[in-house]
Amino acid sequence: MIKSQLYKLVTREFKPNNTIVNVNGVKIGGKEIIVIAGPCAVEDEDQIISIARNIKKSGAKILRGGAFKPRTSPYSFQGLGKQGLKILAKAREITRMPIATEVMDTENTKLVCNYADILQVGSRNAQNFSLLKKLGKCNKPVLLKRGMSQTLEEFLSAAEYILKEGNPHVILCERGIRTFETATRNTLDLSIVPLIKQRTHLPIIVDPSHGTGLRNLITPMSKAAIAAGADGLLIEVHDEPEIAKSDGHQSLNIAEFQHLMLELKSISKAVGRTL
Amino acid sequence: MIKSQLYKLVTREFKPNNTIVNVNGVKIGGKEIIVIAGPCAVEDEDQIISIARNIKKSGAKILRGGAFKPRTSPYSFQGLGKQGLKILAKAREITRMPIATEVMDTENTKLVCNYADILQVGSRNAQNFSLLKKLGKCNKPVLLKRGMSQTLEEFLSAAEYILKEGNPHVILCERGIRTFETATRNTLDLSIVPLIKQRTHLPIIVDPSHGTGLRNLITPMSKAAIAAGADGLLIEVHDEPEIAKSDGHQSLNIAEFQHLMLELKSISKAVGRTL
Amino acid sequence: MIKSQLYKLVTREFKPNNTIVNVNGVKIGGKEIIVIAGPCAVEDEDQIISIARNIKKSGAKILRGGAFKPRTSPYSFQGLGKQGLKILAKAREITRMPIATEVMDTENTKLVCNYADILQVGSRNAQNFSLLKKLGKCNKPVLLKRGMSQTLEEFLSAAEYILKEGNPHVILCERGIRTFETATRNTLDLSIVPLIKQRTHLPIIVDPSHGTGLRNLITPMSKAAIAAGADGLLIEVHDEPEIAKSDGHQSLNIAEFQHLMLELKSISKAVGRTL
Amino acid sequence: MIKSQLYKLVTREFKPNNTIVNVNGVKIGGKEIIVIAGPCAVEDEDQIISIARNIKKSGAKILRGGAFKPRTSPYSFQGLGKQGLKILAKAREITRMPIATEVMDTENTKLVCNYADILQVGSRNAQNFSLLKKLGKCNKPVLLKRGMSQTLEEFLSAAEYILKEGNPHVILCERGIRTFETATRNTLDLSIVPLIKQRTHLPIIVDPSHGTGLRNLITPMSKAAIAAGADGLLIEVHDEPEIAKSDGHQSLNIAEFQHLMLELKSISKAVGRTL
Repeated sequence: MIKSQLYKLVTREFKPNNTIVNVNGVKIGGKEIIVIAGPCAVEDEDQIISIARNIKKSGAKILRGGAFKPRTSPYSFQGLGKQGLKILAKAREITRMPIATEVMDTENTKLVCNYADILQVGSRNAQNFSLLKKLGKCNKPVLLKRGMSQTLEEFLSAAEYILKEGNPHVILCERGIRTFETATRNTLDLSIVPLIKQRTHLPIIVDPSHGTGLRNLITPMSKAAIAAGADGLLIEVHDEPEIAKSDGHQSLNIAEFQHLMLELKSISKAVGRTL
Repeated sequence: MIKSQLYKLVTREFKPNNTIVNVNGVKIGGKEIIVIAGPCAVEDEDQIISIARNIKKSGAKILRGGAFKPRTSPYSFQGLGKQGLKILAKAREITRMPIATEVMDTENTKLVCNYADILQVGSRNAQNFSLLKKLGKCNKPVLLKRGMSQTLEEFLSAAEYILKEGNPHVILCERGIRTFETATRNTLDLSIVPLIKQRTHLPIIVDPSHGTGLRNLITPMSKAAIAAGADGLLIEVHDEPEIAKSDGHQSLNIAEFQHLMLELKSISKAVGRTL
Repeated sequence: MIKSQLYKLVTREFKPNNTIVNVNGVKIGGKEIIVIAGPCAVEDEDQIISIARNIKKSGAKILRGGAFKPRTSPYSFQGLGKQGLKILAKAREITRMPIATEVMDTENTKLVCNYADILQVGSRNAQNFSLLKKLGKCNKPVLLKRGMSQTLEEFLSAAEYILKEGNPHVILCERGIRTFETATRNTLDLSIVPLIKQRTHLPIIVDPSHGTGLRNLITPMSKAAIAAGADGLLIEVHDEPEIAKSDGHQSLNIAEFQHLMLELKSISKAVGRTL
Repeated sequence: MIKSQLYKLVTREFKPNNTIVNVNGVKIGGKEIIVIAGPCAVEDEDQIISIARNIKKSGAKILRGGAFKPRTSPYSFQGLGKQGLKILAKAREITRMPIATEVMDTENTKLVCNYADILQVGSRNAQNFSLLKKLGKCNKPVLLKRGMSQTLEEFLSAAEYILKEGNPHVILCERGIRTFETATRNTLDLSIVPLIKQRTHLPIIVDPSHGTGLRNLITPMSKAAIAAGADGLLIEVHDEPEIAKSDGHQSLNIAEFQHLMLELKSISKAVGRTL
């Protein structure tokens, strides 16, 4: 099969210039490195507002938080649902930061779309084509995470599903792939960053939190991501990682996040970007 | 995390005896090896009816065929949709074989449920938890395919989502996993068959067509699957594989399928099963 | 690169008929399924002789045991070395079973060659080309294990190194590959068995002990291997697996091995083989 | 098994300070990023001397080149052998750059040791324990490449083999691992860089040439490696990549290498290193 049969609209041949996704004034894919931060799951209002204020102070531009959580086990915390979306909206109202949150299925796409500024597709839904088609008809930017065992070709084909339906506002996200290595939760595949920049016009960001699953790898891998050409980062931040309901071991606390942002300034400058 | 937190209802500790899923009289998980066969995609009525008649003659007990097709590229044939379901229903009426077909999202679960006797969940939806929950509320058997990079623990947790919502009629299906090997389309992981039989009470079948992607591996790997303890097989059969709209290279033709079924008789007997 | 540049002598195009490797009268690659059994490591003389007598009674045709052991850690038991070879030779004298043992480097190839009837190349040396070339100049059969992440093409190319130097007596061995799955030690890739039978004239055996790392998977996966077309099996057997110095958790005890051999008879017959 | 049983001497618990490997005055593991460059295989004298002069001018500190080449197929160019070592020695004499070259087996360890300043162990020999032990008795620094499917634990255990025999001068090298992704030759696992810096005192360098297999990924992944904390790089450079006897598609030409070195200056400075 030739590539043109898999995808077309995402390629640089089709559109030579970088796509810059504008999220309420925050531009992803331009000169500025955009950091999206926040907790894995929305747990309560005070927590989110406090985290949002703090990360904004440190330089984060977009707040993330899960209201609908895809969890391996049905016995794990599944998120606050609509109540979580309302809390995120409140945090946006207060901090004026756009919010990114996951949409898990076609049935509540409209609901999530009403609240979120960025609709995140998780890696377990990376080839949920019904969902991708539906998001292609939304007028909100989509943050498409790479599937755990998705090849570059399949990743770009998944993005093509969204563009083909009419939504060009797609942000790709590398979040680690499944390999034999058990020292890290996943293997962060940074090579895909320059490959995507070369082959497509879409912005690509990196999630070192899920990509490594280890708090003390987030800073070096964030630097590496920017050096490799990423347009932004997705970072898990929690006010009390020790008691987080989900993924605390891979979350930074507020002070660590502040420190990370300071460290990223020089590396961003070294590759001609701002932060 | 201890196992009991991931899943419980699927275990032999919870239910020591084998679950036998009854599909309109066809029993999966008992002494008889059940072969589900048919084309990857439903293409037209005459074709399906002809294939159905022929595979029934050879010993297949259930007809499979895709009406909604999850395809890597948006430019590939996406299936006939509702029209495909109607064709399958017609084939059932004529041959009196139950039909298995894929359900791709929560929105058309009810539609597919109205037509199908077995609701198949494809590997790309193996961790589409919204879909799994919805299927847990259906009264139809679910054929749950393992995700391409799903561990045993995750596979059983996905099944638990369905059981937890009240539907105990789950048939697991090994269909190959993603590895570095490129000689085969996927790596068929037969070790999971005895592991599943030891740990759970659910029936497990094997799909050597997707699992290998190579027509001439279907017979040896079908034999190996039965020898490893599988309760059944899912085999792609097409009247003219050369011109199939999807996956022709891994489909058997009618004569090859007939030959396969003959070969499987002695191996089934050797492990104390019937076919 | 076209295939003919990677390998030639191993192909069926070059030699249409099956190669049957004759090990002191035991023929591997013919109608009879050959079982090679014994402990992972040679620990002491009485143990080996006792195991050898018992497995012979159950139908094993060749005794295996490691004298030089490749161990992940330098602090693990490294084998008895030359003393281990002498013990194996003693066991052969008493039981008249040929012996298979691992050769770890070019320096002691001659030594191992003087004692062993089959020279085993471990998966960590699967692409130790200096060793392969040296074995190509030996006049003893070579049991070549697949590397942990070796593709079929690379596996056959490695075998070609041996044949090219003049030694046609090569037995291939599938022993599991590295994947993301952690439920088993490795993922036993049985699809490679029929692929190898189709493309090459060399015999292929299967090692379910290393391939799964789980004692209670050995019987079902041995059956599956024979059903898939394997010419033999390599089985770890220990008189007291609980106290084995290496790999006890994946070893059968004498009674379990006896039971395995009984179970394999009917499956062998079902695929037209003897045991 | 607890970690202390796998390895001890390589850990920061055993030796808190960074090991700095001194190669004829070139220090690997200190503040300076060290670039080792040269062709995959030594082809002829004029070529090597010309490449050596040019890369030295651009800032490379060590010359690499293969005299003994481990090739997948026995029909591929296997290297010039001893003649290649002599050519490398000549290039060292002229340019006063230390030379790094691969040692493939225990038999010619002494020979290679007589010529080389750094003994490189290729990924196919990453668990050739006989070779590792022998190198542990050499008085030359060892560049140990990670195996294609070697876990961090196994990689460190392999290094432990060398240290345990008395040679503390070990430089680790990440060169990509085997995964399902086919867009790159291997998947460069940069997460292992900070993990190794945290757990061990040994220097770690990165090989983006083998790690990606794509010429136009070398610059971004070199930057990413330095940002992640690597102590150096191993870069394939050829005067005429188009006609190289091995790996030309992943080699930089002289001008591209010069350009790379310029680009790496600012990133090195941004992480507090020099180049």
